[in-house]
Amino acid sequence: MELPKSFLSGCGWLKTGDRNNDLVISSRIRLARNIEGFPFSQWASSSDLKRIAEQVREAINHSACLRNANLIAIEELESVDRHFLAERYMISQELAKSGIERYVAINPEQTSALMINEEDHIRLQVLMAGSNLNHVWNLISSIDGELEESLDFCFSNTFGYLTACPTNVGTGIRCSVMVHLPALVITRKIEKVLSAVTQIGLTVRGLSGEGSDIAGNLFQISNQWTLGISEKETIEKIGKILHQIVEQERLAQKQMMDDNRVALEDKIWRAYALLRYAKVISSNEAVELLSSIRFGRNMGILKAPSYEQLNEMLIQVRPAHLQKRAGKQLTMVERDEYRAELIRGWMENGQSTA
Amino acid sequence: MELPKSFLSGCGWLKTGDRNNDLVISSRIRLARNIEGFPFSQWASSSDLKRIAEQVREAINHSACLRNANLIAIEELESVDRHFLAERYMISQELAKSGIERYVAINPEQTSALMINEEDHIRLQVLMAGSNLNHVWNLISSIDGELEESLDFCFSNTFGYLTACPTNVGTGIRCSVMVHLPALVITRKIEKVLSAVTQIGLTVRGLSGEGSDIAGNLFQISNQWTLGISEKETIEKIGKILHQIVEQERLAQKQMMDDNRVALEDKIWRAYALLRYAKVISSNEAVELLSSIRFGRNMGILKAPSYEQLNEMLIQVRPAHLQKRAGKQLTMVERDEYRAELIRGWMENGQSTA
Repeated sequence: MELPKSFLSGCGWLKTGDRNNDLVISSRIRLARNIEGFPFSQWASSSDLKRIAEQVREAINHSACLRNANLIAIEELESVDRHFLAERYMISQELAKSGIERYVAINPEQTSALMINEEDHIRLQVLMAGSNLNHVWNLISSIDGELEESLDFCFSNTFGYLTACPTNVGTGIRCSVMVHLPALVITRKIEKVLSAVTQIGLTVRGLSGEGSDIAGNLFQISNQWTLGISEKETIEKIGKILHQIVEQERLAQKQMMDDNRVALEDKIWRAYALLRYAKVISSNEAVELLSSIRFGRNMGILKAPSYEQLNEMLIQVRPAHLQKRAGKQLTMVERDEYRAELIRGWMENGQSTA
Repeated sequence: MELPKSFLSGCGWLKTGDRNNDLVISSRIRLARNIEGFPFSQWASSSDLKRIAEQVREAINHSACLRNANLIAIEELESVDRHFLAERYMISQELAKSGIERYVAINPEQTSALMINEEDHIRLQVLMAGSNLNHVWNLISSIDGELEESLDFCFSNTFGYLTACPTNVGTGIRCSVMVHLPALVITRKIEKVLSAVTQIGLTVRGLSGEGSDIAGNLFQISNQWTLGISEKETIEKIGKILHQIVEQERLAQKQMMDDNRVALEDKIWRAYALLRYAKVISSNEAVELLSSIRFGRNMGILKAPSYEQLNEMLIQVRPAHLQKRAGKQLTMVERDEYRAELIRGWMENGQSTA
């Protein structure tokens, strides 16, 4: 099975929402749901998985929001296409590794993705650019409501939604925002900020979600608790702390500019220089250098590229994206060269990353 | 006392000789001489030093080669001017630190410099760009001959010229060539080459002479022995080994280009990028990055700047040169910024370094 052609240009969800937010890259909510009468996916037989998938597909057909979604059978995808979808956050790493009776339905805007037979029967996600949790919540709760009309979700009056992993029991919600905090990192204020975040029951992860290292000064802040706190409260809590963190980052940026403008300009122009002239750039280095460029835009030191282009670059330089663009498999060495070539083009001409 | 205006533009000796040699930066010979009837400078009284200086000045006036030389009294120079002369190799660090009755006579082309009352009464040096020892020898032996007509040099029929330090007794000659060997360094063949050099009685030093570290892949190869070997033999020996080293560097360059062209291009374009965009560049970093640029010119990866410009940059980015150009004292931080600003200009416009 081939991926829809429309997927191969820019990353859809980056073009929706507040795509030019200077500090907040993305806002994401996902809901975990399971259908009454079946074991959780992990323990379900193949005929169970098949019947679950049938029911969910039927529900998708009745959803106004998802009616035009592309339904993709994971087992029919080549490895590079699975990684491609995971790289743009449309499926989880776990789903990418799975096979039979696993599906994802993705709307044409690529803002909504519904995974079938992941850890839970349904993992529904809405993802948009910028700081947009309320907007994201409105869309995901509409879809959730539409699905609930056709499906009988496992629900306990005491606990709420039941899920395969106890950490999701209750609302089954995970809200997260990806935020870029270079000045807090450089001025070593980040530890204090993150410890405040975890103290109020939120977690912090790196660019690639659970278990990933912090890279490029990008932090994913999300809720840990799904029990005893409503969806709206969860969203409000994250919104509030995000607002505070963003203010602290702006303060730290201003202070760096006042205290050490030249060193900062040096750092940023060096990153610009390397992106514009290097012949080999690893994935990690690209993330770090693009972080400096974004920082340079924050500070008014650089006028281009736009935040939207910077967001897009972060996705486009990933291994499967490079290989889809090249139309062939590339070794790591070839990818590092091709990545550098692409970035040089983007930096030189301000040309579209699509 | 002010330095002659003509000194403040480009470095004179870099414009003479084989100024566009790709691997050999410079060729230098110096002779150590002392005048009969006086103790060596270190033990001489101030009236002795004065009389030595008078005799040498008189001899300079009778020398056709040095007649138009600028005679500079070290004690009358400001600190920045002393460093300025040392940075362009016109005086030694020792003379720069000295004072009363110390002089240097420099010809208008800045190829010949005669220091008075350094370690020896006379330290005569001729310096030219490129691989030029024979040419340099012709000039210095003419000057030496002219001086000998007016001065009575300490000479022993057994030992030859007598000098303050026994290492110079005999011919009193030190011949040296500065050579750029990036490929031998990167491929780790340099140790073998240098051990061959020392085995035949030559020494290897860094960019700034005795006691200085190797920087920017620049090596100064010079003779160690002055006793039992004639000047011509010394020059021949260095010329021969230089020829061999240059051949080995070319071979190593070719092999690197064959084996790992992309990594090499990456290294060189990164150096170019940083020189063109950085806002702060230390002295050491400048030397290393300029080495990569020179290497890039060797490989045909870069078309500019010229070797002559690269040689000139190496001198012009030094602390005292920066301060003379700025017309004021600069802190280290200010120098690093000003250095970056100058280099950016040179790299962007291919503009003159003078």
